[in-house]
Amino acid sequence: MTVWITRRPDADVAAELSQSTGLLAGIRLGVKDNVDTAGLPTTAGCPEFAYRPDRDAAAVAALRAAGAVVVGKTNLDQFATGLVGTRSPHGAVSDSRRPDYISGGSSSGSAVAVATGEADIAIGTDTAGSGRVPAGLQGIVGIKPTLGVISTDGVVPACESYDCVTIFAPNLELANRAMGVMAAGAGDRQWPSDVRLAAPPCPVVAVPSELPELDREWRAAFDAAVGLLTDAGARIVTVDIAPFLAAAKLLYDGALVSERYAAVGEFIDARPDATVDLTVGCIISAARDIPAHRLMRDRREVNRLRAVAMAALDGVDALVVPTAPMHPRIDEVAADPVGVNSRMGTYTNFCNLFDMCAVAVPAGSAGQAQFGITVLARAFEDAVAADVAALATRDEAPVDVWPQAVAHSVELMVFGAHLRGGPLVHQLTDLGARWAGEVTTAPRYRMSVLPTVPAKPAITRVPDGAAGAALLGHRWLLSPAALGTFLAALPAPMQLGKVEFEDGTWRTAFGCDASAATGADISAYGSWPAAIAAGAVG
Amino acid sequence: MTVWITRRPDADVAAELSQSTGLLAGIRLGVKDNVDTAGLPTTAGCPEFAYRPDRDAAAVAALRAAGAVVVGKTNLDQFATGLVGTRSPHGAVSDSRRPDYISGGSSSGSAVAVATGEADIAIGTDTAGSGRVPAGLQGIVGIKPTLGVISTDGVVPACESYDCVTIFAPNLELANRAMGVMAAGAGDRQWPSDVRLAAPPCPVVAVPSELPELDREWRAAFDAAVGLLTDAGARIVTVDIAPFLAAAKLLYDGALVSERYAAVGEFIDARPDATVDLTVGCIISAARDIPAHRLMRDRREVNRLRAVAMAALDGVDALVVPTAPMHPRIDEVAADPVGVNSRMGTYTNFCNLFDMCAVAVPAGSAGQAQFGITVLARAFEDAVAADVAALATRDEAPVDVWPQAVAHSVELMVFGAHLRGGPLVHQLTDLGARWAGEVTTAPRYRMSVLPTVPAKPAITRVPDGAAGAALLGHRWLLSPAALGTFLAALPAPMQLGKVEFEDGTWRTAFGCDASAATGADISAYGSWPAAIAAGAVG
Repeated sequence: MTVWITRRPDADVAAELSQSTGLLAGIRLGVKDNVDTAGLPTTAGCPEFAYRPDRDAAAVAALRAAGAVVVGKTNLDQFATGLVGTRSPHGAVSDSRRPDYISGGSSSGSAVAVATGEADIAIGTDTAGSGRVPAGLQGIVGIKPTLGVISTDGVVPACESYDCVTIFAPNLELANRAMGVMAAGAGDRQWPSDVRLAAPPCPVVAVPSELPELDREWRAAFDAAVGLLTDAGARIVTVDIAPFLAAAKLLYDGALVSERYAAVGEFIDARPDATVDLTVGCIISAARDIPAHRLMRDRREVNRLRAVAMAALDGVDALVVPTAPMHPRIDEVAADPVGVNSRMGTYTNFCNLFDMCAVAVPAGSAGQAQFGITVLARAFEDAVAADVAALATRDEAPVDVWPQAVAHSVELMVFGAHLRGGPLVHQLTDLGARWAGEVTTAPRYRMSVLPTVPAKPAITRVPDGAAGAALLGHRWLLSPAALGTFLAALPAPMQLGKVEFEDGTWRTAFGCDASAATGADISAYGSWPAAIAAGAVG
Repeated sequence: MTVWITRRPDADVAAELSQSTGLLAGIRLGVKDNVDTAGLPTTAGCPEFAYRPDRDAAAVAALRAAGAVVVGKTNLDQFATGLVGTRSPHGAVSDSRRPDYISGGSSSGSAVAVATGEADIAIGTDTAGSGRVPAGLQGIVGIKPTLGVISTDGVVPACESYDCVTIFAPNLELANRAMGVMAAGAGDRQWPSDVRLAAPPCPVVAVPSELPELDREWRAAFDAAVGLLTDAGARIVTVDIAPFLAAAKLLYDGALVSERYAAVGEFIDARPDATVDLTVGCIISAARDIPAHRLMRDRREVNRLRAVAMAALDGVDALVVPTAPMHPRIDEVAADPVGVNSRMGTYTNFCNLFDMCAVAVPAGSAGQAQFGITVLARAFEDAVAADVAALATRDEAPVDVWPQAVAHSVELMVFGAHLRGGPLVHQLTDLGARWAGEVTTAPRYRMSVLPTVPAKPAITRVPDGAAGAALLGHRWLLSPAALGTFLAALPAPMQLGKVEFEDGTWRTAFGCDASAATGADISAYGSWPAAIAAGAVG
């Protein structure tokens, strides 16, 4: 039993599952053992560190409140320090398919539990890649949100400035659903009011111009994944990965590791009897005497590299990299525990340092190994990353992505050139608007043709008592700032205001200055595309 | 000559002044000697540290480009470490009025140069209060903007995470003008798209429930300043100042000071021959061996205190405190250099740690001393702080405040209930909208009365060729998110779109669903208030 550190009795779990209700009803949840779950010990992979929390971590509480049922606490690289899954006194967690191989870590048990179906979803944490590397090696989805949008209350800190709570799931739909629930629970960081709620239809995706640490087979797998993205409509550009890799090295090789001493160093010093993993203990103890001014210098260097990296991503919607560069055997890690671990973090370590968000998704195989890619985006562009990840997996473009549950958005109903596929739709998608289905007005409106270029419909309300038409439109969700920016650029005679819909609601929609609505009445066609198809427009 | 460390020849300055053009034409500028100015040495108050920069700091370059002329480099507490103005090998800078008294620091020379009129404006820096304490003691204005909105390129770091470039000026108008120029130049931090561009008409202002370190006379001066604010329409509430003061103590008494070692510690260690102020040298050298994990712990504590403090300010627009708690003599500082300095920072130290912005303004006198107050607001609410500062000084409410030069804003023209003083204007001012004058439409519009509560005008464009009226309205500036939020809440039949104005421009303004515009035509009155005054509205 290396996957689980603590497991609840099957009967208890079954009883709760049978009664669970909510968005996650019937979903079995694994919780990484550095995240508090009321009634179960939190060990962080060190038996002597154990304590019994009397309440759930914020993330656990949110998932439970939505119907998820905790199965147990999962094994991890001790104190969440590692990317391999072998650094645990409970034993190395094995790959779900090939027992001689590593699971990846530090959220080793959580990833394997989802891969084997012992849990439907699992909570992980991620500082250097712990929510992504094991997802990649186990062929499942891992979402690492923007720092601070999920509360870390009740999580044992690893490197507190960069710690994140993550979700593992077998597919993007369930991962998005669980993230939405967790994010709605709490979070210390406010979503900006101009956040993009969707990737553009044909996103610009950067890939590294070189792929260090990957062998020929793994490179071929990456090229194939990029090929699928291209086929799906992404425009691929290359980016110099050097500043990203330089920051990655700072995470363990520099002074940043001192934050790990701040987290659990005093415990390790005070308890020489504790079952501390040799490698983990060395890393953390060595950080005790790093002077603060060196930490300041390294943080400055991270900021400098971040500025260079972000400038390189100017005009890019997302960066796609291999999640892990290889899949080592357990004995290979034992032979070189620090070296192999360090190479495993090549494409993950920089992410949290650069305040990026990430979605790891399966992308075929490399020989006998599962191959995975990670889609990274700027802070708060979690919806962009989720959409590009869906594109990469050839899933249907998801109707919902998790930031919709939390980012403040407003809606705009459109009838003409801003319908999905219309000639002016880029004015909305450039602002991060998300298509959200069809809508029909109350039968109180009139549609006529405006003499604009491109041609547009004028939607005006008929006077009380007059006969009107029910008109078909599209609904877009967008940030408040996007709506304000869109309005500020909107030319006459278009106006925006409330329109009545068939369900009796009044929603923000396109209207028109009535003095301009003098063109042919095309209401009878019921929609602008129908009027065009009938040859009724210009 | 303790005010100036380096002074340019008068003839050079005069020649440049006579030819200067731009927003700051003819303005004489003093530059604190830790800010690079091409052609003059940067010493940071330590002769052996001196170097000759070959280009201006970004802030200096921006002011010069707008016409300001550099007079020279001003004295400072060495390495910007101190709030007293006595810690300089060039000698203590004296108060501009009473030579036995301190100037305040660390931007000592800059503040005194402006107080005496040797410069019209001066650049300071501020980490713990260096841009505010000397403004308070010298009876001038000091603006300490939100961290990161003015570039610190070319500034010798003091405690880099919290360093700011500031402006001293004799009045708010000039200070706002100079800040706008500096801010337009650069800055690493993006303004949020929901930023408030104005304080509400009757702002909620918090004051400390207790005033430690102030004697009876200084308390009376503070009470008088608060009384003026009340008279000007502010609603005063009290706040527990304890978490603010607790953070203040961490700035020097904890591990945060290690960042000062990171800045200049290696220079001090390497140059035992350098003329280092004894107190400054002790503070910085003592920070060399502070371990990084202690710094992490103190930063966590700052974050915790910040959360408590910000919660206490919930619903509050600005916090007003005394700028300094007293005005010591130079010999009093000499007798207890660390103790007096520490007390001087009581009401300033917490500001940058909590990511707040501040405006220090004169507020009468306390006995023979100048008395000053500081208005603090949350990050990016610099416009709110500037407006409350204007209220406190009984200046005319400024038409412009400096964030307008940089924060992204859009405009909305209104004609009825959202005119300044109208019954629905709070819908705009609650979102931080800023009144920006009167406007008149092209003579192409019609105004009628809508049967709404409260009554509103319907503005509709007349058909081409028909006779229309020129209508008077008001212009508001607001953030894109504010405009989007306003539109999303706007009820039918109101609509927003482009209206033509008398200067031929088309600007975002109120329109109306024409099917609802069936009320009495009141266009002849020319404005909604005129129609109301004439009894033409319901």
